[in-house]
Amino acid sequence: MRRTIGAAILSALVAVTTMSLINSSQTSAQPKEAPRKVLRHVVLFKFKEGTSKEQVKAIEMAFGGLPSKIDTIRDFEWGTDVSPEGKSKGFTHCFFVTFADEKGRDVYLPHAAHKDFVKLVGPQVEDVCVVDYWTQK
Amino acid sequence: MRRTIGAAILSALVAVTTMSLINSSQTSAQPKEAPRKVLRHVVLFKFKEGTSKEQVKAIEMAFGGLPSKIDTIRDFEWGTDVSPEGKSKGFTHCFFVTFADEKGRDVYLPHAAHKDFVKLVGPQVEDVCVVDYWTQK
Repeated sequence: MRRTIGAAILSALVAVTTMSLINSSQTSAQPKEAPRKVLRHVVLFKFKEGTSKEQVKAIEMAFGGLPSKIDTIRDFEWGTDVSPEGKSKGFTHCFFVTFADEKGRDVYLPHAAHKDFVKLVGPQVEDVCVVDYWTQK
Repeated sequence: MRRTIGAAILSALVAVTTMSLINSSQTSAQPKEAPRKVLRHVVLFKFKEGTSKEQVKAIEMAFGGLPSKIDTIRDFEWGTDVSPEGKSKGFTHCFFVTFADEKGRDVYLPHAAHKDFVKLVGPQVEDVCVVDYWTQK
């Protein structure tokens, strides 16, 4: 009797542990197994020579504020150029916006918050480059 | 006796299930809780007018082969421009490479596999833009 119950406990533990391991591996492996395509929106800015540090800072903050105002922005990051290759063509800022699809971008582009941002940044930029792409690996 | 053993089984099951849930939540929450800064390497290409589809395809494949040859590439994706804004400055391709840090990039840039790639792509591109940035949110 004891052996039977002991075996039952062991069997139950093995079953639950196995389920746990399967769940855990599914959770951690999911991003690699099913990388869903997303739409990236890459924006590069080169500021005019007279643009002050405060104006640049205000633009960085304003772009950074868009994800809280436009809910189709799925991810957002940015940074300033640190490439040692000298091929940045004067672009000092890269803003990297992610949408689930074109619909997300098509909400963003004409959105009042985005238009306000464009009004703010427009007079300060000497050059702008925008490339959108669907992610491929 | 039966009750005691039954309670022991139940207790063991609860403990293992709880551990499983804790593990699972740690796995899925980790990226949001600790967004580590990484170094992005953004490369835009504009190909010469005479570049054939086959040549472009070969370049896409060759860039896509670098992550398997240079182990400091932490992430890689690419895509072709689909922006409706008309501000791509003729750049049709964006390759987006991620390194953990400058050391990772400094292994990549002079790496034989990267140099071979540069030799392949060099004659076909009319314009190149490279911006590297540390991720900020």
